[in-house]
Amino acid sequence: MKIVHSPQQMSEACRRLLRRGIDIGLVPTMGALHQGHLSLIDAARRENKAVVVSIFVNPAQFSPKEDFKSYPRPLKKDLLLCRKSKVDVVFLPAAAGMYPRGFSTYVEVEKLGRLLCGKSRPVHFRGVTTIVAKLFNLIRPTSAYFGQKDAQQAIIIKKMAEDLNFPLRIRVLPTVREKNGLAISSRNKYLNKKERKDALVLSLALKLAKALIGRGVRDTKKIISAMRRMIISKKSAKIDYISIVDTDNLFPVKRISGNCLIALAVSIGKTRLIDNIVITKRG
Amino acid sequence: MKIVHSPQQMSEACRRLLRRGIDIGLVPTMGALHQGHLSLIDAARRENKAVVVSIFVNPAQFSPKEDFKSYPRPLKKDLLLCRKSKVDVVFLPAAAGMYPRGFSTYVEVEKLGRLLCGKSRPVHFRGVTTIVAKLFNLIRPTSAYFGQKDAQQAIIIKKMAEDLNFPLRIRVLPTVREKNGLAISSRNKYLNKKERKDALVLSLALKLAKALIGRGVRDTKKIISAMRRMIISKKSAKIDYISIVDTDNLFPVKRISGNCLIALAVSIGKTRLIDNIVITKRG
Repeated sequence: MKIVHSPQQMSEACRRLLRRGIDIGLVPTMGALHQGHLSLIDAARRENKAVVVSIFVNPAQFSPKEDFKSYPRPLKKDLLLCRKSKVDVVFLPAAAGMYPRGFSTYVEVEKLGRLLCGKSRPVHFRGVTTIVAKLFNLIRPTSAYFGQKDAQQAIIIKKMAEDLNFPLRIRVLPTVREKNGLAISSRNKYLNKKERKDALVLSLALKLAKALIGRGVRDTKKIISAMRRMIISKKSAKIDYISIVDTDNLFPVKRISGNCLIALAVSIGKTRLIDNIVITKRG
Repeated sequence: MKIVHSPQQMSEACRRLLRRGIDIGLVPTMGALHQGHLSLIDAARRENKAVVVSIFVNPAQFSPKEDFKSYPRPLKKDLLLCRKSKVDVVFLPAAAGMYPRGFSTYVEVEKLGRLLCGKSRPVHFRGVTTIVAKLFNLIRPTSAYFGQKDAQQAIIIKKMAEDLNFPLRIRVLPTVREKNGLAISSRNKYLNKKERKDALVLSLALKLAKALIGRGVRDTKKIISAMRRMIISKKSAKIDYISIVDTDNLFPVKRISGNCLIALAVSIGKTRLIDNIVITKRG
């Protein structure tokens, strides 16, 4: 397994692979790898001759008050996991390598980036699309892998790739959960024992929504208030949003009919967590 | 010479070329090809195995009050010129092909895009960088060719390519002028006989600036007012800006010392024209 720090070297290495007709699967991460990431790496491994994992805690997607500094960076463990998963190249750039002095170009998906998480995190998705565009150009993957856990991110990146004609396939893989239902996230590390238990309320509220829809409830207001009641029963929980939206344009849905995304963001103590499920027509 | 309309077909054709190790030179144009474009095509021809010319009047870089509708589109003549210049592929997309319904992703170079021409044309450079990013992704050129006549555009595209890690070379070729000094531009077609004569004042003012600097004048205020006096002597001329700026960051320069760009935009009648020269340390 190669570890590459320099963007230029990364670009040249990938160019050599492409010239030899070797397709590249890219898994962009911020490190602190967990089962969710590993499922992406496994898919990339199955579907491509070469697998590149980028590990980069991207400052552009954090606002000044967020957890950029404290974000976990267990590098040794991450590299071990990559080696075990038969990754070919880990791209590990420095912040100054990706954002040199005077950096000033941003890629933005308008509208989609201002809804849901974008309301409380206004620069977040601009940061995500900018770094992902940079990685796409540097690495030129055939396919790039993202988790359904970050549903809005996946939708926005798909939209960016389509709008800007990036010649690649975006693969979105299912959320990986603990047995108790908790969506696996690098930020779960911030939770203490009690909060970890309270955090189950996110997936439970989604289950509740699914059950209500199964029982024929179509009015999304009703569904959302039932979810809200369940979540606020936990004292440590503070709701950022609970939304039922169109899976393409993220606009709120009034009545459940076609496919929709039920997404929520809830702070448990100081830790902001997100989760979602997609409801398909067939339920 | 192939003519390709569909973005997807264009992308596939270029992918096949790349797989065969054939480097591509891209000349992005809005058509109405003239000697300036032909000099770019010739350079692309010399420096690459395959030459792609895109012809697309890009709506995103025009504001509602500008000349998008009336912009010249002499397609037959353009194709003839491309054929004569041994272009391999002309990419001729429809607006709906490049900006399908719901298009919402933009690439923006902050700061640089708001100076000089960006002041009176606030969405212009965002439109330029977005379409150029799309073309870069579709065509994956080894080198892309731009004219020094659009100095700010060239600087912004270089910055975008660098910031977003586009793996290609940006080549900027000298402004082509008529014998009388007028910078060749597709918009010169809008000028009547009298205006065409008045339009010489742009290059004459730049010559004056160069002469003043040659004589030792260093105060840019003095140089700019001499240029201004010369230009306003033409009744049909209305100055948008005359600026002497740093060639990298486009910030105004007070005293001439290192390299600088002297750029101006002047409307002659209803036609907005631009021109520029670069002053190097050696003069």
